[in-house]
Amino acid sequence: MGTAAAPLDVSTMQARLVKLRVAATKAGMAAVVVTPGSDLRYLIGVGGSSFERLTALVVPADSDALPVFVSPALEFAELGDVPLDELGVEVRTWVDGDDPYPLVLRGLAAGRLAVSDMTPALHVLRLAVAGEREQVLAGPVLRELRMRKDAAEIEQLRQVGEAIDRVHERVPHFLQLGRTEAQVGADIAAAIVEEGHAVAEFVIVGSGPNGASPHHGVSDRVIERGDVVVVDIGGPLPSGYNSDSTRTYAVGPPRESGVLAAYAALHAAQQAAVDAVRPGVTCEQVDHAARSVLEEAGLAEHFIHRTGHGIGLDVHEEPYIVSGNDLPLEPGMTFSVEPGVYFAGRWGARIEDIVLVTADGVERLNNRPHDLVEL
Amino acid sequence: MGTAAAPLDVSTMQARLVKLRVAATKAGMAAVVVTPGSDLRYLIGVGGSSFERLTALVVPADSDALPVFVSPALEFAELGDVPLDELGVEVRTWVDGDDPYPLVLRGLAAGRLAVSDMTPALHVLRLAVAGEREQVLAGPVLRELRMRKDAAEIEQLRQVGEAIDRVHERVPHFLQLGRTEAQVGADIAAAIVEEGHAVAEFVIVGSGPNGASPHHGVSDRVIERGDVVVVDIGGPLPSGYNSDSTRTYAVGPPRESGVLAAYAALHAAQQAAVDAVRPGVTCEQVDHAARSVLEEAGLAEHFIHRTGHGIGLDVHEEPYIVSGNDLPLEPGMTFSVEPGVYFAGRWGARIEDIVLVTADGVERLNNRPHDLVEL
Repeated sequence: MGTAAAPLDVSTMQARLVKLRVAATKAGMAAVVVTPGSDLRYLIGVGGSSFERLTALVVPADSDALPVFVSPALEFAELGDVPLDELGVEVRTWVDGDDPYPLVLRGLAAGRLAVSDMTPALHVLRLAVAGEREQVLAGPVLRELRMRKDAAEIEQLRQVGEAIDRVHERVPHFLQLGRTEAQVGADIAAAIVEEGHAVAEFVIVGSGPNGASPHHGVSDRVIERGDVVVVDIGGPLPSGYNSDSTRTYAVGPPRESGVLAAYAALHAAQQAAVDAVRPGVTCEQVDHAARSVLEEAGLAEHFIHRTGHGIGLDVHEEPYIVSGNDLPLEPGMTFSVEPGVYFAGRWGARIEDIVLVTADGVERLNNRPHDLVEL
Repeated sequence: MGTAAAPLDVSTMQARLVKLRVAATKAGMAAVVVTPGSDLRYLIGVGGSSFERLTALVVPADSDALPVFVSPALEFAELGDVPLDELGVEVRTWVDGDDPYPLVLRGLAAGRLAVSDMTPALHVLRLAVAGEREQVLAGPVLRELRMRKDAAEIEQLRQVGEAIDRVHERVPHFLQLGRTEAQVGADIAAAIVEEGHAVAEFVIVGSGPNGASPHHGVSDRVIERGDVVVVDIGGPLPSGYNSDSTRTYAVGPPRESGVLAAYAALHAAQQAAVDAVRPGVTCEQVDHAARSVLEEAGLAEHFIHRTGHGIGLDVHEEPYIVSGNDLPLEPGMTFSVEPGVYFAGRWGARIEDIVLVTADGVERLNNRPHDLVEL
């Protein structure tokens, strides 16, 4: 249960915990409560399990107070090699029948309690009853740490980007006339694992009209001559760092009219957005760069989602590349640039790369050709 | 994304929504907000996706108000064949950049808002800010519906019970001297899918000392002669209904002393707990039935977890078979009976069946022999 290798040594964990305390103090929080998931994995290297039993790392803002790890006794044995002792973390276990919520609160200074964004309501509301404290989201402080990747994280994201590029290189072998999306998707899923991912987290094979739905998965639709096919795939390395890349394929000359012109505009839009990326530019400016190219081509209404999302231990995380987000980019941020065009009932296309903000510009972590891939 | 067959027709969905409204009214709630997961699947047949974008079914207690389905526009197209029109559900979609929380609250009568137990804090706390309403857990009302299975659900649970029994029948072929737990686990995972599950949700192969940790997964430990091996496996059918069954295997005569006597007590404890199951008996009485047999055998301290958990669309759900739970059993409830004994650093054993409470007693949904399986 979640004990795979992470690019984390004790000093990195220590540094992250200190940064979190400092950020929590600035944000006026008494403590940050982190439950299983990628936030926990970021801090101590394992994500834990996420059943109904409360597991939580409690990080007090006060640097004189020890962090506390609350865990069901029977799951604590499976935590793996987390150096809680070295990290100076006090362990408080509980057994079925105990009330675990007071274990979170015991000894905490007065003040607001932050909870990690994915904490289930089950724990949020019981903790509220037990503590009678104002609760706030920990996301805003945790994202300040997580959205700027360090060198080890960037290396993992480069590796997983290369792995998913190798899968896209193989997609033409799988995407054959007469096969169903589901059959193609199963081969792609196997290739995702073969190329080094821990699991195939998601596989979208959107052929013909199914390509017009950005979150389509796979179906029993048979691939036909003339189909345009959106293939959006990814998953985590054993370390937890994720890939996510989309290319669009054409099975013979496209059946629908206007595909080549619209695709050319999409290609230009994706390039414009990537070109816009550098420190100091805001997230919404990157979104706008893609959107304005599609607007000029008369395709604005066919681009129905944001331009991208941050990526790391989560497939979707901060920063979101969306209108209204005036967060300025900084070196070490990694996110998708994935404009798309969608024609309901007919076809769709999307081009997606993960990019890294560098000291003076941008580095693409996906590097397969961006043209419509004609098969 | 969660569009697999569910044993649900429109009239069943309609009936469940009405029951939920009645229960919400009794509980003094203005509305119940159900986000993606098994609660949503129970009500409308699909679980939805659980990303950071808000999706929610809002069920007002007031029977004159329409239920509302709030969804990101781009995910709504992928919802599948949910008959929201026929169900009289109003759809409110939103796009990236919008604030979706007012869409949940618009038109609701004053009063407490219930949120489904697995709703992420991200949505719970933003909804709290948008609504300034007291929030409570929806779990207590939803469990009243979900923990009494109807005939179609029971049929699914019988089917998945038989499927996992067929996997246990094959385990001796996989569990061979010299192989690692991980290798054995990979074969078991493939068999779980071959026997009709949608995925292998969990595979525990706890050999030798690893068997002493109830939530161990698999490791690179090599199976040795004399090992006692706990194999705890399960997963959902395409309909979403889960299996979960444990048998304990011995690779040749057990190396550790006392295994046969302790196993005999465990076997008797599991039988006693199953025998205790009938309508009107409380959950804690079932727990006590297992525990008292192990106490008499001097093994009380080696049984370190509750006796069981409900099962259905979730692997772990109400009712929990645990000390302190005075909920009386009713026909249609389904749960695990899984006492275990654990000797740290040496070995462990567990026997687990899913059982159904019938009109006058109990039916086991797992029926492999309960003896220590000597290989």
